Amino acid sequence: MRILVVNPNTSVTMTADMAAAAARYANPDTEIIGVTPPWGPPGIEGYFEGFLSAVAVMEAVTTYPEPFDAVVMAGYGEPGREGVRELLDVPVMDITEASALLAVTLGHRFSVVTTIVRAVPMIEEILLITGIADRCASIRATGLGVLELEQDEQLTRRRLAEEARIAIDEDGAEVIVLGCGGLGGFDKELEAAVGVPVIDGIVAAVKMAEACHAYGVSTSKVSSYARPNRKAITGFPQSARSRDGVAAGTAPTVGA
Amino acid sequence: MRILVVNPNTSVTMTADMAAAAARYANPDTEIIGVTPPWGPPGIEGYFEGFLSAVAVMEAVTTYPEPFDAVVMAGYGEPGREGVRELLDVPVMDITEASALLAVTLGHRFSVVTTIVRAVPMIEEILLITGIADRCASIRATGLGVLELEQDEQLTRRRLAEEARIAIDEDGAEVIVLGCGGLGGFDKELEAAVGVPVIDGIVAAVKMAEACHAYGVSTSKVSSYARPNRKAITGFPQSARSRDGVAAGTAPTVGA
Amino acid sequence: MRILVVNPNTSVTMTADMAAAAARYANPDTEIIGVTPPWGPPGIEGYFEGFLSAVAVMEAVTTYPEPFDAVVMAGYGEPGREGVRELLDVPVMDITEASALLAVTLGHRFSVVTTIVRAVPMIEEILLITGIADRCASIRATGLGVLELEQDEQLTRRRLAEEARIAIDEDGAEVIVLGCGGLGGFDKELEAAVGVPVIDGIVAAVKMAEACHAYGVSTSKVSSYARPNRKAITGFPQSARSRDGVAAGTAPTVGA
Amino acid sequence: MRILVVNPNTSVTMTADMAAAAARYANPDTEIIGVTPPWGPPGIEGYFEGFLSAVAVMEAVTTYPEPFDAVVMAGYGEPGREGVRELLDVPVMDITEASALLAVTLGHRFSVVTTIVRAVPMIEEILLITGIADRCASIRATGLGVLELEQDEQLTRRRLAEEARIAIDEDGAEVIVLGCGGLGGFDKELEAAVGVPVIDGIVAAVKMAEACHAYGVSTSKVSSYARPNRKAITGFPQSARSRDGVAAGTAPTVGA
Amino acid sequence: MRILVVNPNTSVTMTADMAAAAARYANPDTEIIGVTPPWGPPGIEGYFEGFLSAVAVMEAVTTYPEPFDAVVMAGYGEPGREGVRELLDVPVMDITEASALLAVTLGHRFSVVTTIVRAVPMIEEILLITGIADRCASIRATGLGVLELEQDEQLTRRRLAEEARIAIDEDGAEVIVLGCGGLGGFDKELEAAVGVPVIDGIVAAVKMAEACHAYGVSTSKVSSYARPNRKAITGFPQSARSRDGVAAGTAPTVGA
Amino acid sequence: MRILVVNPNTSVTMTADMAAAAARYANPDTEIIGVTPPWGPPGIEGYFEGFLSAVAVMEAVTTYPEPFDAVVMAGYGEPGREGVRELLDVPVMDITEASALLAVTLGHRFSVVTTIVRAVPMIEEILLITGIADRCASIRATGLGVLELEQDEQLTRRRLAEEARIAIDEDGAEVIVLGCGGLGGFDKELEAAVGVPVIDGIVAAVKMAEACHAYGVSTSKVSSYARPNRKAITGFPQSARSRDGVAAGTAPTVGA
Repeated sequence: MRILVVNPNTSVTMTADMAAAAARYANPDTEIIGVTPPWGPPGIEGYFEGFLSAVAVMEAVTTYPEPFDAVVMAGYGEPGREGVRELLDVPVMDITEASALLAVTLGHRFSVVTTIVRAVPMIEEILLITGIADRCASIRATGLGVLELEQDEQLTRRRLAEEARIAIDEDGAEVIVLGCGGLGGFDKELEAAVGVPVIDGIVAAVKMAEACHAYGVSTSKVSSYARPNRKAITGFPQSARSRDGVAAGTAPTVGA
Repeated sequence: MRILVVNPNTSVTMTADMAAAAARYANPDTEIIGVTPPWGPPGIEGYFEGFLSAVAVMEAVTTYPEPFDAVVMAGYGEPGREGVRELLDVPVMDITEASALLAVTLGHRFSVVTTIVRAVPMIEEILLITGIADRCASIRATGLGVLELEQDEQLTRRRLAEEARIAIDEDGAEVIVLGCGGLGGFDKELEAAVGVPVIDGIVAAVKMAEACHAYGVSTSKVSSYARPNRKAITGFPQSARSRDGVAAGTAPTVGA
Repeated sequence: MRILVVNPNTSVTMTADMAAAAARYANPDTEIIGVTPPWGPPGIEGYFEGFLSAVAVMEAVTTYPEPFDAVVMAGYGEPGREGVRELLDVPVMDITEASALLAVTLGHRFSVVTTIVRAVPMIEEILLITGIADRCASIRATGLGVLELEQDEQLTRRRLAEEARIAIDEDGAEVIVLGCGGLGGFDKELEAAVGVPVIDGIVAAVKMAEACHAYGVSTSKVSSYARPNRKAITGFPQSARSRDGVAAGTAPTVGA
Repeated sequence: MRILVVNPNTSVTMTADMAAAAARYANPDTEIIGVTPPWGPPGIEGYFEGFLSAVAVMEAVTTYPEPFDAVVMAGYGEPGREGVRELLDVPVMDITEASALLAVTLGHRFSVVTTIVRAVPMIEEILLITGIADRCASIRATGLGVLELEQDEQLTRRRLAEEARIAIDEDGAEVIVLGCGGLGGFDKELEAAVGVPVIDGIVAAVKMAEACHAYGVSTSKVSSYARPNRKAITGFPQSARSRDGVAAGTAPTVGA
Repeated sequence: MRILVVNPNTSVTMTADMAAAAARYANPDTEIIGVTPPWGPPGIEGYFEGFLSAVAVMEAVTTYPEPFDAVVMAGYGEPGREGVRELLDVPVMDITEASALLAVTLGHRFSVVTTIVRAVPMIEEILLITGIADRCASIRATGLGVLELEQDEQLTRRRLAEEARIAIDEDGAEVIVLGCGGLGGFDKELEAAVGVPVIDGIVAAVKMAEACHAYGVSTSKVSSYARPNRKAITGFPQSARSRDGVAAGTAPTVGA
Repeated sequence: MRILVVNPNTSVTMTADMAAAAARYANPDTEIIGVTPPWGPPGIEGYFEGFLSAVAVMEAVTTYPEPFDAVVMAGYGEPGREGVRELLDVPVMDITEASALLAVTLGHRFSVVTTIVRAVPMIEEILLITGIADRCASIRATGLGVLELEQDEQLTRRRLAEEARIAIDEDGAEVIVLGCGGLGGFDKELEAAVGVPVIDGIVAAVKMAEACHAYGVSTSKVSSYARPNRKAITGFPQSARSRDGVAAGTAPTVGA
């Protein structure tokens, strides 16, 4: 199967990292395609940028030129999943949701360790809507911005471990979820450091997408996520204007 | 004070109606400016269109050429309020929130009477995030699309009264909230028909915006709704490309 | 319009302060009438006193000799609002409710800074019944009694700022609500000190009362708040016995 | 031990019935004293009357001339329990609370069958504050007022059975709670008719009061229910004015 | 009446202690029978052992050779109550439930002071299912295992007081519940030490069992707790194999 | 990898069916082993039988003679998962949990269609503890017992479709979950009949087990699900006594 792993921001480096993270534990016959939105912010750190990303991601998946079997939305805490579900017939997995859903099978409570404080309410709201907020022990911020995460890996590693440790010791977390799509590479190392399962949402989402694909189930089209009615929409997709030049989604192929 | 009443869709007729609805009960010194997003769908009936609208509304308010004192987001059930709150320093009132908050001061439970069934989960989620869902007796759909509402006013009037009646008699509603920004004109007539207070969210939002303005309070900038950090964002605003021609927001002035 | 701002206790000084606080941000054509209950405790600091106040306030508003357009119940955390709503046809705004409802439009979570620890469960219960408790980050007590607040303003100011600071830094509050009807004068100063919006419930309630009046909506009379049936009630109003002497409500007129 | 069973209304006939209901299953060494408030409404059917009752009941128990070991508040859905708890050192059991707490040990969910529709939100709010609302399947109104219940016992019996039957068959109730202090006599007959346990709150409250007395535990005085501070309160108790004539509480002794 | 107080573990010493604790405040005509399960672990400190205990307790009560009127399940935090309710026609009181239900009548919030950290989620889940979790301020672990509690009473006493003190001062507890069936003897001493009501669940359960027995109500048999259908079950009861020798339940008689 | 799919009851036919259902969508390199508990009831239709099953399943997995990589607990609504998680180091997936967690990624709300009415509270409680109850639209019973399901497939098929249809049309379900481990074979047919995704919990659990195995994450051992301490437990496993005869788990191998 072919899964589009869609970065919420325009950083192609991060797209490549996300695709690599996604490919690590994918099934052998799963093809991972990293997709970068054609426009938007280079990193998502708030609601405004999150909403931009939601639309840019919708544009990236609907203008993607080839067939695919599932979408993984690789922004942790970003909005938009419901819109993408409306637009597509294939399963759409969001890493915030998928990681939380997997986490509750592994421990009594989980904590999210994320980037900056202002991301916390965005994450809270998704967990609330997902209906799984009661199993979340805490959402802890490292204080590191999305773009800082990769600049000083040593610092990132240390801050993740510090906050995870507090989550376990004081908040009662038994599982740690990495609260940013760009933190995938740190999971196993952090797991070794703190002694509880650590979940990278991209892996969780890929595995759940594979599960749906194998089972032959996809988004329900009976009501909430039914296809939008035909309408004369302007301004979307933006990339239509550049259809003669740059491709809509820059898509480094990774994996099998 | 000057309030921008922002239609979520591109229908200028509906913008004019919303501005007129907003002006009905505004203070004498409140200037109501109807704003139409520069792009997007002509009516919002689902998540995809709602997310488009969120961004188009953010574009409309940030490119609006003159100063203003508050924003009323006139889409019922549409996402985006948190993003607009980040971008602006003035109070931002959303009609879904404002109508529910006013309703709970008038009766034990309220019901929302809205357009189509697929709008129900969108509304549910906003009420859940607002933290007021427990006071909502029900969300009932008339089955009429946003664009149908104005085509056959007789039918709209009848269907609103039918669903409001069931909400009162079977669901225990004591207040009715009109679940679409385009239903403003029907409030007083429906109130007379069913015998309970009927709230048009646009009026509720205008009055709450006036309240904040008079009191001198606005959106907290300490964390969730702090200004976005400066970043090189592409694709927003779209209207920048047309800065030499069409104005960003078509803004019919209504009211004082 | 004429709004009765009803002090829950018998302190006429505090009534005057509340009326002054209410008048600060009222519309020019709003007449604020401070009303003191004819009997009861000189300050409310618990359930027993709160229930006395509920009845004394009901007596004050039903025996008030002139017409009025709305009632603001100026006791923070005090019971009784539902009873007053039954008895009157005009809108009844309670400052505990009104301040919380306004607060959620300005920040992700709010905290209440109140008087003494034993007031906390009373406030909790009102927020729970109002249906807005999930948006409350914390209720913090300064340890200062109702009557102490005005005796040492310097101390009050300092303790409010200290608890508000902890609420913001540790509990995640983005808005502060003043948890006592007698704290109105401190709002703007505290706002300047802590850097987040600070809400005096009396102002919030006055503005929401003005909103309802302007819109022409009032308490739903269909069920919960329907007028009480006629019955031979004894002992209420108490002031009937003194109808030949002291007036029921001592009402210093303040404002326009 | 001596238990005051306090009728919320001024009907001495109903006080006698409540005392009789309370005595039915009391321990042999429990003395039941029915207490009628010295003033208030002859029946409680709404918030206003409920708040009057709260204060009148507080007056009745604080002016009761002899020692007692516990109080049972026999009004179903009436407010006031927290105030009485503050005023007394002995255990205070409220029939709304006590019946619900007993019910959850006997079945998965319980339903309340009460008098009139407008009593429903009052009951809902007490169950919510008690923290047991999630185990309540439904609150169903017979449409019979408090004073009607005894006028036509045949009708009362039939309506109780009809609503209990619907609660069991459609709402999933496994236990029925009688939602009015004056319905005590109907419990065993209704239980025989519908085949599930039926709980009269007065019995539940008496047994829980006996339990606390036997165990030697009473209301916590550490915070919420600490004794009120000394204050110069006016207007309470009202009956002080008649101390030379009528006794504060008319108290028919029933039981051992 | 005769109440079986069933120890969840196989320690006959602890059974005797539990029976003694149960007898302390029982009615004079209540006969307390301590019952030890015929197999299982000598102390319950986790889910696995809890489930074993659930079945062993079911075996103990169904093979008990003489009639009885109620069952008290004396394991704090242990599962199984619903199964025992299915199997019997007499009331079944669980100490986790009973203590919490009694506690909410005595204070605004209660805290549980229990044995080891891993017991906390088991207790949380029972409170959640009972529907009373919102009134629980905290569940605090002393770090002492079930079997350690009796080995060093001095230490147990000290740790209980320390955690209870924190629960009162920091978590807002107004009532303390002893979170282990083997802690009964410490209630009054702890109550004296910390100044709030302290509840031993065994006493609470005995008193509620007496209440049901006196009132003549028992487990609802209409649905959830209906008798199991007849089936050819193997492996239960285990003790059937030993019917020629050791008695199923070793039952030291205590009390009246 | 090797997954034990553990039937909660002793019917070897049903074990074979479950193993077959599990194998349908398993990865090619997944070996499915159906396991039948060595004792217990031939079908689980209530709490008592559920608790027996919990222990018998714990016995089956701990006495299973060969290594395995994950466990799927194939009883829908049955207790025990936490105990099995304590006992093992490999991931343990429960079909009630797994199906609900997958369902929320495919639609706004899901409904469970199960066997008999008395199974409903058992399922409710698991969804509540899992923390996903708010996304469950309804739990509907067909009225068919576990053993009836396979006797008349025509009837089963019809009743499933009828209840699923009501769940979709009246309760707002967008996904249907099969609420019995023995219904696996009906998923695709029912999906075709009602037009929404239908989930067999066994498939969901197998896919999530495969996901954890591939990712290298398993049950957190830090607290709730830590290995039980060593203790002298009697009566478990029962099958130890028959170690010379019948094997503990009858395990038909199915799949790759």
